[in-house]
Amino acid sequence: MIIKNICILGAGTLGSRVALQAGISGFNVTVYDIQQKSLDFSLTTMQKILRQLHKSGQISAGQDLEVLSRIKFTLSPSEAVENADFINESVTEEADIKKKVWRQFGEIAPEKCIFTTNTSYMLPSMFAEDSGRPEKFCAFHFHDVFYSRVVDIMPHPGTDPALIPILEDLGRKLNQVPVLVKKENPGYIFNTMLMALIGAAGKLLTGEVASIEDIDRSWMVNFHMPMGPFGILDSIGLDTAWHVTHKMPDRASQAFAALLKSYLEQGKLGEKSGQGFYTYPNPTYKEQDFVK
Amino acid sequence: MIIKNICILGAGTLGSRVALQAGISGFNVTVYDIQQKSLDFSLTTMQKILRQLHKSGQISAGQDLEVLSRIKFTLSPSEAVENADFINESVTEEADIKKKVWRQFGEIAPEKCIFTTNTSYMLPSMFAEDSGRPEKFCAFHFHDVFYSRVVDIMPHPGTDPALIPILEDLGRKLNQVPVLVKKENPGYIFNTMLMALIGAAGKLLTGEVASIEDIDRSWMVNFHMPMGPFGILDSIGLDTAWHVTHKMPDRASQAFAALLKSYLEQGKLGEKSGQGFYTYPNPTYKEQDFVK
Ligand SMILES: NC(=O)c1ccc[n+]([C@@H]2O[C@H](COP(=O)([O-])OP(=O)(O)OC[C@H]3O[C@@H](n4cnc5c(N)ncnc54)[C@H](O)[C@@H]3O)[C@@H](O)[C@H]2O)c1
Ligand SMILES: NC(=O)c1ccc[n+]([C@@H]2O[C@H](COP(=O)([O-])OP(=O)(O)OC[C@H]3O[C@@H](n4cnc5c(N)ncnc54)[C@H](O)[C@@H]3O)[C@@H](O)[C@H]2O)c1
Repeated sequence: MIIKNICILGAGTLGSRVALQAGISGFNVTVYDIQQKSLDFSLTTMQKILRQLHKSGQISAGQDLEVLSRIKFTLSPSEAVENADFINESVTEEADIKKKVWRQFGEIAPEKCIFTTNTSYMLPSMFAEDSGRPEKFCAFHFHDVFYSRVVDIMPHPGTDPALIPILEDLGRKLNQVPVLVKKENPGYIFNTMLMALIGAAGKLLTGEVASIEDIDRSWMVNFHMPMGPFGILDSIGLDTAWHVTHKMPDRASQAFAALLKSYLEQGKLGEKSGQGFYTYPNPTYKEQDFVK
Repeated sequence: MIIKNICILGAGTLGSRVALQAGISGFNVTVYDIQQKSLDFSLTTMQKILRQLHKSGQISAGQDLEVLSRIKFTLSPSEAVENADFINESVTEEADIKKKVWRQFGEIAPEKCIFTTNTSYMLPSMFAEDSGRPEKFCAFHFHDVFYSRVVDIMPHPGTDPALIPILEDLGRKLNQVPVLVKKENPGYIFNTMLMALIGAAGKLLTGEVASIEDIDRSWMVNFHMPMGPFGILDSIGLDTAWHVTHKMPDRASQAFAALLKSYLEQGKLGEKSGQGFYTYPNPTYKEQDFVK
C-alpha cells in the first residue's frame, strides 16, 4: 500500500509537529481540530519551526512555502479524511475524547485508511474497537518529531501484522527512527526507562541520600548530558510526572508523588510555570560552574 | 588541613588513574601494590593516558615527565604511607582484602592521614572500624577519573563531618565534580540511577516488549547518546552486571539475572570478551545506519 494522503486529528503541540514533518516529507496533509484557534496557532507553530529548520540549514529558502502548500487546515471531519490513506490521532490525552473521535472517524474514513494514535500514556486496545476497524488500528507514537526522532510502533493484540512493515517504512519517510513495541506496554520503550530513572532519582531525593543538584550533577557529568533527572522533570512538567507517579503502588513512588504534589500545590509545574526544581529561564544547572 | 602527599593503595585500573590525576594536579603521590607486575603495568597505563591527554591538548609537551616525577611506586607499606596526608584505597573489590589492607595501614599511617576507600559496591562502614580511626574514614569514589569526572563523597555514620569540606576541596583539585552522598547508599548516586535504567531495559527485553537494538535505539535517539543500556552493559561487563542484578529480589531482576547468566555461560562478558549483547570491536550500534 502506498501512503500519500495523511490526516492529522488534533492541531496541538504534537499534531502540528507531525503534520509539518509529513509536509516536509512530501505528503499531502490535512489537519483537523474542533477549534479554529487551535488551527490558527498550529500554522503559527509550523512557521516558527520552519524558520528554525531554515536557520539550522535543514530546509532551503523557499521550501517553507512549498511545504505549507501541502498542508490544509480544516474544521470539517469529512474534508479532513477525504481520500486519507493514514490517520494519526493527536487529540487531547483523555480517554473519552479519544474514544469519541475514533467512533466518529471510524465511520467516515475511507476503507483503505490506516488508523493510528499518538497517545503517550494510554494503549491502542482502548480505542481499537471504537474505530470499528481494530485490525487497521495501531499506536504510532512520536516523541518530539524534530529533536527526538523516534516513533514507537505498538500494535494491540488485534492489529493486522501486515501493518507493521508499512508503518516502519512510513516512520522512516517521516525522518524518524521506527522502533517496534512487540506487545502493549504503557510508556512504550523510552518512557518506561525514563520513568525508572526518574523513580530512582526521586527515591534518592526523598530518602535524603543526595540533593537535587548533586543527583543531576552525577547524571550530567557521567553521561555528558545537558540536564539530569530533575532538569528533565522540569521540562516534562511536574503535573505530568505526578500523573504517572502517583499511580505506582510502591512506597518510593508514593513518597515521590507526595513531594511532586507539594510542588504542584505551590504552583510549581516546572519550566512552563517558571519554577519547578529549578527556577527559569536561567536554571542553575545551565550555568557553567554547575559541574565544576 | 592542607593535603600535599597522597598515597594510593592498589595499582590497578582505578588506582593508576587516581594516582595519575593526583600527579597532574601537583600532589606528591606514592602508589602501593603487593605485586611488582601491577606497579609496572600501572606505569605503562599512566604513560598511555598521558599520551592521550597530550594528543587532546589537555597537557603540554614535557609535562608528562614532570607529572611522572611526582609519582613513586613501591611494594613497601611503610614507604607508601610515609608522611601521607591522604590515602585512597583502590585494591581488589573483595571485602576480606579491603579489611586486611585497612587493618594494616590503619596501624602504620601517620596520625594526620585521612582514610578513603574507592569501593564501587560496598560501604565505608564495612571497613571504618578495621582502620582503627573510623572518624577519619570516608568513601571517596571515582568513576573513571578522566572521562566521567565525578567523585562521590560518602561518609558512614561515624565519619567526622569536618572531613566533608576537605574532601570536596580535594575533589575539585583533582579536577572532579564532588557530589555528597549524605548517607550510606549502595551504588552511591549514579549507579543507583544507572541500575534502575538497566533494570527497566532488562525488563523490556525479558518481557519480550522490544529487541535489544530497539531498546538501545530509543535511548540513543531520544537522549542523543552514543550508546543505549545494552551497549552500556557491554562496556560495564556482563559479569559485573550479573553480580549486582542477581542479588535483587524482585522477579524482573531475577529474570534479567538469569538472562545475563546465560550470556556468561557462553563466555560472553561484553566488550572485554569480544561478545556480549553486541559483537566487538565493531558493534552494530556504532554503525551510522543504526539510528536511521
Ligand atoms: N506533548 C508531547 O510532548 C507529546 C508527545 C508525544 C505524544 N503526545 C500525545 O499527543 C496527543 C496530543 O498531545 P498535545 O501535547 O499535542 O496536546 P495539545 O493539548 O497541545 O493538543 C490537543 C489538541 O486536540 C484538540 N482536540 C480536542 N478534542 C478534539 C476533538 N474531539 N477532535 C479534534 N481535535 C480535538 C484540541 O483542540 C487541541 O488542539 C496526546 O495523546 C499526547 O499524549 C504528546
Ligand atoms: N574499574 C572501575 O571502573 C572502578 C570504578 C570506580 C571504583 N572502582 C573500585 O576501585 C577498586 C579497584 O578496582 P580496579 O578496577 O582498579 O581493580 P583492579 O583489579 O584493576 O586492581 C586492583 C589492584 O589491587 C591490588 N591488590 C590486591 N590486593 C592488594 C593488597 N592487599 N594491597 C595492595 N594492593 C592489592 C591488585 O594487585 C591490583 O593491582 C575497587 O574497589 C573497585 O570497586 C573501580
